[in-house]
Amino acid sequence: RVNADRLWDSLMEMAKIGPGVAGGNNRQTLTDADAEGRKLFQRWCEAAGLSMGVDTMGNMFMTREGTDPEALPVYVGSHLDTQPTGGKYDGVLGVLAGLEVVRSLNDLGIRTKHPIVVTNWTNEEGARFAPAMLASGVFAGIHTQDYAYARRDPEGKTFGEELARIGWVGDEEVGARKMHAYFEYHIEQGPILEAEEKQIGVVTHCQGLWWLEFTLTGREAHTGSTPMAMRVNAGLAMARILEMVQAVAMENQPGAVGGVGQVFFSPNSRNVLPGKVVFTVDIRSPDQAKLDGMRARIEAEAPRICEALGVGCSVEAVGHFDPVTFDPALVATVRKAAGDLGYSHMNIVSGAGHDACWAAKVAPATMIMCPCVGGLSHNEAEDISKEWAAAGADVLLHAVIGTAGI
Amino acid sequence: RVNADRLWDSLMEMAKIGPGVAGGNNRQTLTDADAEGRKLFQRWCEAAGLSMGVDTMGNMFMTREGTDPEALPVYVGSHLDTQPTGGKYDGVLGVLAGLEVVRSLNDLGIRTKHPIVVTNWTNEEGARFAPAMLASGVFAGIHTQDYAYARRDPEGKTFGEELARIGWVGDEEVGARKMHAYFEYHIEQGPILEAEEKQIGVVTHCQGLWWLEFTLTGREAHTGSTPMAMRVNAGLAMARILEMVQAVAMENQPGAVGGVGQVFFSPNSRNVLPGKVVFTVDIRSPDQAKLDGMRARIEAEAPRICEALGVGCSVEAVGHFDPVTFDPALVATVRKAAGDLGYSHMNIVSGAGHDACWAAKVAPATMIMCPCVGGLSHNEAEDISKEWAAAGADVLLHAVIGTAGI
Ligand SMILES: NC(=O)NCCC(=O)O
Ligand SMILES: NC(=O)NCCC(=O)O
Repeated sequence: RVNADRLWDSLMEMAKIGPGVAGGNNRQTLTDADAEGRKLFQRWCEAAGLSMGVDTMGNMFMTREGTDPEALPVYVGSHLDTQPTGGKYDGVLGVLAGLEVVRSLNDLGIRTKHPIVVTNWTNEEGARFAPAMLASGVFAGIHTQDYAYARRDPEGKTFGEELARIGWVGDEEVGARKMHAYFEYHIEQGPILEAEEKQIGVVTHCQGLWWLEFTLTGREAHTGSTPMAMRVNAGLAMARILEMVQAVAMENQPGAVGGVGQVFFSPNSRNVLPGKVVFTVDIRSPDQAKLDGMRARIEAEAPRICEALGVGCSVEAVGHFDPVTFDPALVATVRKAAGDLGYSHMNIVSGAGHDACWAAKVAPATMIMCPCVGGLSHNEAEDISKEWAAAGADVLLHAVIGTAGI
Repeated sequence: RVNADRLWDSLMEMAKIGPGVAGGNNRQTLTDADAEGRKLFQRWCEAAGLSMGVDTMGNMFMTREGTDPEALPVYVGSHLDTQPTGGKYDGVLGVLAGLEVVRSLNDLGIRTKHPIVVTNWTNEEGARFAPAMLASGVFAGIHTQDYAYARRDPEGKTFGEELARIGWVGDEEVGARKMHAYFEYHIEQGPILEAEEKQIGVVTHCQGLWWLEFTLTGREAHTGSTPMAMRVNAGLAMARILEMVQAVAMENQPGAVGGVGQVFFSPNSRNVLPGKVVFTVDIRSPDQAKLDGMRARIEAEAPRICEALGVGCSVEAVGHFDPVTFDPALVATVRKAAGDLGYSHMNIVSGAGHDACWAAKVAPATMIMCPCVGGLSHNEAEDISKEWAAAGADVLLHAVIGTAGI
């Protein structure tokens, strides 16, 4: 078993970097806080005997050598970046549990046949730069590096500029590494494991996603002196689209979600009807037909809503992945590890996207989940217990040993 | 008659300060551009022989002496500040036409009995600091100066700090001046005069306003892994309130408007349901009962909408004025001047709020309006012709001479 206290202490130590305003973290990707978090992780890894490789997307690969020089590495990891008002565990747990696996193997004097690589993927959250899972997506050949470098944050800074600014452009070609297997341990971010009182989620699938960024064009005009009949009200069109997205998601129950997290009014002045409203619809389902059906419905209805108001409507897909089926053999390995360790467990579908979804395109991949309090995530109040954290890390340790061989 | 070319040249010269991105202006109150605009206006006034007084709210009073040392001044003015994406005429026309009146009197060698004071009121727009007409409101005793100084812009800077920073805290006590009369010349900002093909609007009333700032409290949560039934969706509540405001305004036709120009999502990340949504509802009517009835309806229905979604709802009135009736004698003076000059004219109700609304609380006051193209204002494309501008300035000249005496 892993050292639960050491894992927990590392989580608490990392959480000091980029503190939030309500007990969580704001360590968004490619900020100074991200750079500081990377440095701390590097120091810890080097102290545990790992050697560092960094690719041109800033992905960090910390390698513990194996005994077989021919064997491809087993990768474990997740991400150290957070939402602007994120929790202490989303992503971080998976990276630091990977480190804890290595530390435990060191303690036990165990050497594996395959090397083990603890990975920190750049910009998983997609909060500063859409889409999410950007750097693992480039690794898997889904996006080009040029596309990634050109992504802009709301202030207009590009991913490429910011990666260079914080000094984490590595020299490795992205995606050149080959993986024997990829494991990602993550908090559930949803309510199921806690409600079912299970310690471990054996992740069989991940639901797919579309991010649809709408740009509505109204006519900027005075809120007081512009008669109702003369308004070209992009804000009202946005409101109707939000309601329509809610209806589409509800019609697709169970097994679908839809909502909007980001809205920009322009010029955003109290007495000016907005000339432009930009917002992103987030829809998801584990069912490919439902997912694409929802997208088609929304993309058909939104222009009708806008047209009735004279509002211009354009939409761009700024994020997408299809539903993922994880590797059955690795899933079985995780299930067996949980069972051998005596942890209660169940199959689960990931509601959130993860770097594992892209890793699954280029290698056998799967995930392990632990519960989180109230299913709450993307909230500074996100919470787990030390015991929950350690149980999943134990499963990760056993799954890695089983896959990397001794 | 005034010098139409000189008035127009001054308008074009002022528009070079704080240029917008689409041919208009961004010279928001208490910015460096505002300071530069004030300096230019001061230079022009001093060249025309006016002496400057500035009060502790930064209101500028440029005085042309009268022949009777006992006589109270006739005030003319408006504001030089703009919306973030404002036009070149909203406010500026009234200030520079006041200057043009003085320049014309100088050309003609006319001295008036009452002094004439050309005024630039601080923060009329209310775009950076709510409410609108803030400094004329303090002048009229509606707000305290402490209240005004504590107003914050979206970045958290206070009015008091910013007024000091740009160096325009004067030494006069606010509101100490007494006015014989107050005239404000302004573009209509609505479609009526153009549609009716009238050169001059004789402004008899101004409609009243409420700005209702809503703060909705949801639960920040992951857009993917949070089931629909577990969401506390403040964004959806906002959408429903926008639709309800639209319905309330439509039920009160004719003679009412309602809309939303400003919305802030927090944390405003694509994959986080908002924990907080702040937005301002702007409702107006010339009919006091309608205005207050709309407010009551909205304040009653919004909490019900929120409650159904489990969303917290609080509301603060951040701007308000009752419908205004302008001084009948001054209104008659304006109507007579328009008639004498042979300009087509009609009575009109101002759809926007103006400093004249507060001046009317402490002195006889009224307004003069000229048409604007397509009724468009609070838009960089706001437009008027040189002839329209000059016609209203001619009326202002005659009304001022009639009131200030020669
Ligand atoms: N795990 C996680 O929160 N990833 C961010 C991408 C997403 O929105 O699913
Ligand atoms: N005239 C004008 O646009 N004033 C701003 C205050 C308002 O919103 O009416």
